[in-house]
Amino acid sequence: MKLLLINPNISDSVSALIGAEARRTAAPDTEIDVMTAPFGVAYIETRFEALIGAYAAAQLAAEHHARFDAVIVAAFGDPGLPGLREALPCPVTGLSEAAMASACLLGQRFSIVAISQRIRAWYRETVEHAGLLGRLASIRGLDEPLADIGHVQGDQGERLVALAERCVADDGADVIILAGAPLAGLARSLRGRLPVPVVDGVSSAVRHAESLVALQPGKATQGSFAPPPSKPHQGLPDSLARLLTQR
Amino acid sequence: MKLLLINPNISDSVSALIGAEARRTAAPDTEIDVMTAPFGVAYIETRFEALIGAYAAAQLAAEHHARFDAVIVAAFGDPGLPGLREALPCPVTGLSEAAMASACLLGQRFSIVAISQRIRAWYRETVEHAGLLGRLASIRGLDEPLADIGHVQGDQGERLVALAERCVADDGADVIILAGAPLAGLARSLRGRLPVPVVDGVSSAVRHAESLVALQPGKATQGSFAPPPSKPHQGLPDSLARLLTQR
Amino acid sequence: MKLLLINPNISDSVSALIGAEARRTAAPDTEIDVMTAPFGVAYIETRFEALIGAYAAAQLAAEHHARFDAVIVAAFGDPGLPGLREALPCPVTGLSEAAMASACLLGQRFSIVAISQRIRAWYRETVEHAGLLGRLASIRGLDEPLADIGHVQGDQGERLVALAERCVADDGADVIILAGAPLAGLARSLRGRLPVPVVDGVSSAVRHAESLVALQPGKATQGSFAPPPSKPHQGLPDSLARLLTQR
Amino acid sequence: MKLLLINPNISDSVSALIGAEARRTAAPDTEIDVMTAPFGVAYIETRFEALIGAYAAAQLAAEHHARFDAVIVAAFGDPGLPGLREALPCPVTGLSEAAMASACLLGQRFSIVAISQRIRAWYRETVEHAGLLGRLASIRGLDEPLADIGHVQGDQGERLVALAERCVADDGADVIILAGAPLAGLARSLRGRLPVPVVDGVSSAVRHAESLVALQPGKATQGSFAPPPSKPHQGLPDSLARLLTQR
Amino acid sequence: MKLLLINPNISDSVSALIGAEARRTAAPDTEIDVMTAPFGVAYIETRFEALIGAYAAAQLAAEHHARFDAVIVAAFGDPGLPGLREALPCPVTGLSEAAMASACLLGQRFSIVAISQRIRAWYRETVEHAGLLGRLASIRGLDEPLADIGHVQGDQGERLVALAERCVADDGADVIILAGAPLAGLARSLRGRLPVPVVDGVSSAVRHAESLVALQPGKATQGSFAPPPSKPHQGLPDSLARLLTQR
Amino acid sequence: MKLLLINPNISDSVSALIGAEARRTAAPDTEIDVMTAPFGVAYIETRFEALIGAYAAAQLAAEHHARFDAVIVAAFGDPGLPGLREALPCPVTGLSEAAMASACLLGQRFSIVAISQRIRAWYRETVEHAGLLGRLASIRGLDEPLADIGHVQGDQGERLVALAERCVADDGADVIILAGAPLAGLARSLRGRLPVPVVDGVSSAVRHAESLVALQPGKATQGSFAPPPSKPHQGLPDSLARLLTQR
Repeated sequence: MKLLLINPNISDSVSALIGAEARRTAAPDTEIDVMTAPFGVAYIETRFEALIGAYAAAQLAAEHHARFDAVIVAAFGDPGLPGLREALPCPVTGLSEAAMASACLLGQRFSIVAISQRIRAWYRETVEHAGLLGRLASIRGLDEPLADIGHVQGDQGERLVALAERCVADDGADVIILAGAPLAGLARSLRGRLPVPVVDGVSSAVRHAESLVALQPGKATQGSFAPPPSKPHQGLPDSLARLLTQR
Repeated sequence: MKLLLINPNISDSVSALIGAEARRTAAPDTEIDVMTAPFGVAYIETRFEALIGAYAAAQLAAEHHARFDAVIVAAFGDPGLPGLREALPCPVTGLSEAAMASACLLGQRFSIVAISQRIRAWYRETVEHAGLLGRLASIRGLDEPLADIGHVQGDQGERLVALAERCVADDGADVIILAGAPLAGLARSLRGRLPVPVVDGVSSAVRHAESLVALQPGKATQGSFAPPPSKPHQGLPDSLARLLTQR
Repeated sequence: MKLLLINPNISDSVSALIGAEARRTAAPDTEIDVMTAPFGVAYIETRFEALIGAYAAAQLAAEHHARFDAVIVAAFGDPGLPGLREALPCPVTGLSEAAMASACLLGQRFSIVAISQRIRAWYRETVEHAGLLGRLASIRGLDEPLADIGHVQGDQGERLVALAERCVADDGADVIILAGAPLAGLARSLRGRLPVPVVDGVSSAVRHAESLVALQPGKATQGSFAPPPSKPHQGLPDSLARLLTQR
Repeated sequence: MKLLLINPNISDSVSALIGAEARRTAAPDTEIDVMTAPFGVAYIETRFEALIGAYAAAQLAAEHHARFDAVIVAAFGDPGLPGLREALPCPVTGLSEAAMASACLLGQRFSIVAISQRIRAWYRETVEHAGLLGRLASIRGLDEPLADIGHVQGDQGERLVALAERCVADDGADVIILAGAPLAGLARSLRGRLPVPVVDGVSSAVRHAESLVALQPGKATQGSFAPPPSKPHQGLPDSLARLLTQR
Repeated sequence: MKLLLINPNISDSVSALIGAEARRTAAPDTEIDVMTAPFGVAYIETRFEALIGAYAAAQLAAEHHARFDAVIVAAFGDPGLPGLREALPCPVTGLSEAAMASACLLGQRFSIVAISQRIRAWYRETVEHAGLLGRLASIRGLDEPLADIGHVQGDQGERLVALAERCVADDGADVIILAGAPLAGLARSLRGRLPVPVVDGVSSAVRHAESLVALQPGKATQGSFAPPPSKPHQGLPDSLARLLTQR
Repeated sequence: MKLLLINPNISDSVSALIGAEARRTAAPDTEIDVMTAPFGVAYIETRFEALIGAYAAAQLAAEHHARFDAVIVAAFGDPGLPGLREALPCPVTGLSEAAMASACLLGQRFSIVAISQRIRAWYRETVEHAGLLGRLASIRGLDEPLADIGHVQGDQGERLVALAERCVADDGADVIILAGAPLAGLARSLRGRLPVPVVDGVSSAVRHAESLVALQPGKATQGSFAPPPSKPHQGLPDSLARLLTQR
């Protein structure tokens, strides 16, 4: 099985974290390929940055999906995921929805621990769009500027643990999601440190993508995730254009 | 006052409809400028097409907003609107949220009448993301392929009226939204034909944009609609890059 | 265009604030008339006071609406608004729904800053009845008795600013609504003082009433906002009786 | 124990139905007094009529409550109830909330069978304001003009049964509420005719009012149902004025 | 009338509290019988303990219900109630739903004061399953181990009052529910101590059970609370088996 | 890895279906053990039957879990799952939550196709308790008595397909869940027959259980899924008693 993980941001250091955690998680016969967006920002905290990341992810997915069994949008917030689920013939998932799927199998209410204050609004909307606000206990975020997005785990590890503990003690969280690709792998290194199950987006996405491939549920030919109906288009990169016309 | 209406699709015929209705609605001293996306599809029915339209709208807005007092994303579903509201210094609105704002001032529950069956799922999510599912009575759509997106009002006018009447009689609608830029102006020509108030997205957006400019509520410098925090970026068109760096 | 603003309370000083802000906002050719309830209380904080205000507003509206293009219930909580929307042939709006419509065009989540602690429950129900709890970040209120309802802006201005700042920093508000007719005009005088857009009920209601008149969406003849069905009545003031019988 | 049932409408024939069912239900030592609104309409179907009925109910309650242990607003929709609960020193309930309380003790989801199509929107909002939409299976109503509001049970009994059966078979109702004072007592005469428990508003309200008196839960002196804070008022009937000033 | 109260836990001291409060509340001609679970735990704080209590309650109810007019599951959280409502021919209620029914007749939003921190999650789910989260202001619980479940009222009375006061002042509660059978009767002894109405589960359940018997709403023969359809079974205690086969 | 699947019903034929589908799905090194409840009913359609099944599942789990890496409650509705998640040291999941997790990774809204009309209410509550009503398109069920629960796939296959097609065409389903252990494996045999992805509970549960074991998220020691606090108990089977005392 071959999985394509798309980092919709430009940070090669984060792509390296993503790839490392994906490979630690994947089945022995699963190949992992991580691609980094050729344009965009270092990491997504806002709706505007997500809009850019969605388009970058769509271009990479359109160009490369044919060689893979499944595609993972490897940023929390899952920019571009709903559209790609319509357009691609293979299963697609993202860090947010995969992490939330894991969390929902481990407890009733989850909290999200994130890398900044600003990012919380966008994460909250991600949970809301998934229809899961009723299971969200809280979202807490670091409140300092990040010196280096590739080293946030090392720089801020203890602060992240403290945030998670408050989610459990004060907010009623049954499960903690450590959110954002820059935290990929942190759940693994914190094993045993937290009083509730801890979920990581990358490893959840890899496992769930493998499951979707294995379960072979089929691709929609009707309903709202069937490929978009054929209609005139213009000016698009070839790869996107092909997705709109091949059925 | 100068308003920029961005058609995030490639249909010049729809842009003409948008412009005509906008000019019929606007105050005498309001200038209307309509721009058509240089790339994309003829009209948006799906999440994937919306992803493309959002990026096209963002590029046009980034390039041209400085000459305008407000920007309108002139497609139902408002592709790109939340991100642009963060990034642009001026008010931004879209056909969906403007139509829903009007509808909420006219009754308790509204229905949406749309140009296709497929489009309903995307519209439903638009209403859900606005937190307004509790006020949605129903969404009904035409069930035939559209011969020409620029002439759907003429070709399908009576069918659209019949759908609206069922929304009132069967679904409990207090207000009808005729949704989608291709229906721009239809509410005006149907005046008196329907048993409840009828709302048009373009005219609502023009009026509300004028109001937002007049009310001068201020631009967010904190909170989730402040401009995105500064961070590394690369590979973006100059106009988008400028939005990410100028504060 | 002629707009009737009905203060459902007995405070002439508040009516003066309402009228001043309405005239500052209205289009040059819009005439503003403010009427004060002949019976009731100084300002509404409770459901019981709102019940009285609703009846007072209904009597004034029934008596005078024929000379106006639209009617505004000029108290937060909009006492009597849903009933008047059924009964009157012209558009009707109120400070709450107009302020919330503006807020929803400016951000995702809004907070309400109010003049007392007690008033918060009634405001919360107002938001809930509008189906907008999902967009409410918080409601905060002053916690001191008000010396003079006509001077609360001057007496409590800085405290109100501090409350608004906490709504942004602690509650996640994207927009602040300064709620209640006694605060009419305060948003204007605070321009630039707050880190997010600020909304005023009176100016919003005037702009939106003008828009509803201009858009001519039509009056319901079916559905739940059609005039009440004819049936026996007795003992009502002539003006209310006329509203129940003329179709 | 003495209970005051206030018919907020002018129909003496409906007051007679209310009184008869109340007396059939009440404990032997409970005295029942029914008062009919001196002004208003024959029966409430709309928000506007409810506004009038609320004020009429408030006047009767203010004038007479002191002689009673509890007050019942004897119309579905409970016009004026929330305000009266603040202002009166004794327990207050209404047909809607009492019927819904009974229904919630008998099953998970209930349907409402009502006397007209138009009335459904107002009933739906009543359920929504009670926070019980999640337990509402459906609202169905007669679709013919009512010849005589005092004889609707006899004229339309079989049609009402048929509507109730559809609520069970098609809508998933576990319980049926026969709604509206004009149907007072019908649940009793239909006993054994319907395949699920049937709830009547008047008998529920009498039982629950007796319970509230017996349980002596206490009157709020803080929170949103404490009496309204003292403030200037004018022009009110003496009885209403007294409620606003006596503490 | 004869009421069976089932304590789904093994605590005879709590059964004594339940019986005492039930007898203080019941009508003179109502006989009260309290039965204690022969197996289980001292009191229920968790979903796992509730699972056990539900089965114990079902066995007692199946064995003894025929001699009673109604059955009350006398633990907060109502373990087994929904199933027993299907299976038993008589009315069944529980402390939670009865307390919430009372609370909803006394105010808009209620808080629950409970005997431990851990129990809060289970109570929250109880409220959620009742569809009443929209009316829940908060749940607060004692944060110390309980020395003796039969004496928690005496040991912790003042702490419980302090929690209730915070619910009113900080959380917006209009009504307080003192939750859990170990607090049976505390509302009565606190009369006049709290600034809002106080609700007790046992007395509410007794009153409401009496009402359900008196109102004779009928037993479901269709819908989701009809007795379970007949099907093969094995290995069950005779009493449970009889409930599954007798119609 | 060793997985224990507990059929909380007495049907060996259904256990055989469960085991067959589980083994077809499991990884090569995963051992599957299926146990059938020693007491209970043939299949669960109601809350009362679920109460019994929960207790049977708890006994089997308590007795045997120590030899397994994860436990699966192998009935739709997941009787006993929340309690077992607290009490067992290993991951636990169930057919409903696993199927819904898969469905949420494949589309926005899912429908459930079930084996009877009666079962729909219980399934709806299962979805509601999972906080996923916002993603439920519909629940449709067969409307004929089942001749043999072990052969429902063969007897009713075409009818089930027809129900699924209506869910897509009429209800807006993006994904179909074929619900209930008696349908285990049907999704596999229907591959390619339906126009949207199809989800099976058993295979989903096996995959997700394997993922939970692999991800090693940790067991809660705090929060609402920590083991129940220690307290007096009596009369329980040894296995259940051990779960309550060993920490």
